[in-house]
Amino acid sequence: MEPIVIRPIGFVVHQYSDEVVRSSTKGVDGVIEVLPEYVDGLRGLDGFSHVIVVAYLHRVSEEGRRVLLVRPRGLARRLGIPLENLPEVGVFATDSPHRPNPIAVSVVRLYRVVGRYLYVGNLDLYSGTPVLDIKPYTPSRRVDTLSLPSWYTQLLEIARERGLGEV
Amino acid sequence: MEPIVIRPIGFVVHQYSDEVVRSSTKGVDGVIEVLPEYVDGLRGLDGFSHVIVVAYLHRVSEEGRRVLLVRPRGLARRLGIPLENLPEVGVFATDSPHRPNPIAVSVVRLYRVVGRYLYVGNLDLYSGTPVLDIKPYTPSRRVDTLSLPSWYTQLLEIARERGLGEV
Repeated sequence: MEPIVIRPIGFVVHQYSDEVVRSSTKGVDGVIEVLPEYVDGLRGLDGFSHVIVVAYLHRVSEEGRRVLLVRPRGLARRLGIPLENLPEVGVFATDSPHRPNPIAVSVVRLYRVVGRYLYVGNLDLYSGTPVLDIKPYTPSRRVDTLSLPSWYTQLLEIARERGLGEV
Repeated sequence: MEPIVIRPIGFVVHQYSDEVVRSSTKGVDGVIEVLPEYVDGLRGLDGFSHVIVVAYLHRVSEEGRRVLLVRPRGLARRLGIPLENLPEVGVFATDSPHRPNPIAVSVVRLYRVVGRYLYVGNLDLYSGTPVLDIKPYTPSRRVDTLSLPSWYTQLLEIARERGLGEV
């Protein structure tokens, strides 16, 4: 099969450094600037409290794209536990940016839409990140009854003990 | 910016026709066949009850990628109401397959992982669809307090009256 070619429909813009974004547990406030030619695609989006942002993690290197096993580094940082205490799991079982196609699926708070600018919160994306798609967060996206593997529930337990909420 | 090039990490495989998938409200059962070179990336995934499948909607034509305003056709079909009674909204406010980058983000039920095969349910993807990424559905993905624009809540009302649940 031929490689798939996609183009950004917009970009993430905010004032925070990559390090601030990386270490934030709740994400940062910012703007998604949609390219002028796609502005009609935003009609009817204002009023959704949350949107799903599909983004291309452009900082991930070719080497990062070849990684298949990781210790979930972001989790370790947020939990404040040494990386070596985390299990090594597959990238498809984590939100690691290292993965064959470094595509992020982020649920962000949508404050308002003004022209081609989306004012958002809870952004876990660096400023300058290309955005590939935007989708409304509708009730059907929500899964009420979840189960999780034991390696993950053990991490959730640590987070709860440390008062960090859901990770 | 240069176009972004991505490659499938696997494919959707099931026995159902496109028409059955399109008209299904709950999706179909099927398999996600991950390519052999990525099998290590699945370690630790078994045990998650749900996963997020990022897929490339390869049947969408170049013309379909230029569409920016739609009447939500899938909703109309499921609600059994004439398409012309639905509002015309932007593609980024809908789950329409017609969008500049035809990328789907589907939440599916994960029954089990056997080698490089994921047995899943609630699939709304045609057999043969290229899969770009797989992510675990973790509690942090769930938004408890949502708000929706009035055009959307009116559609939800119609669905509830017809006993269709969440759409």
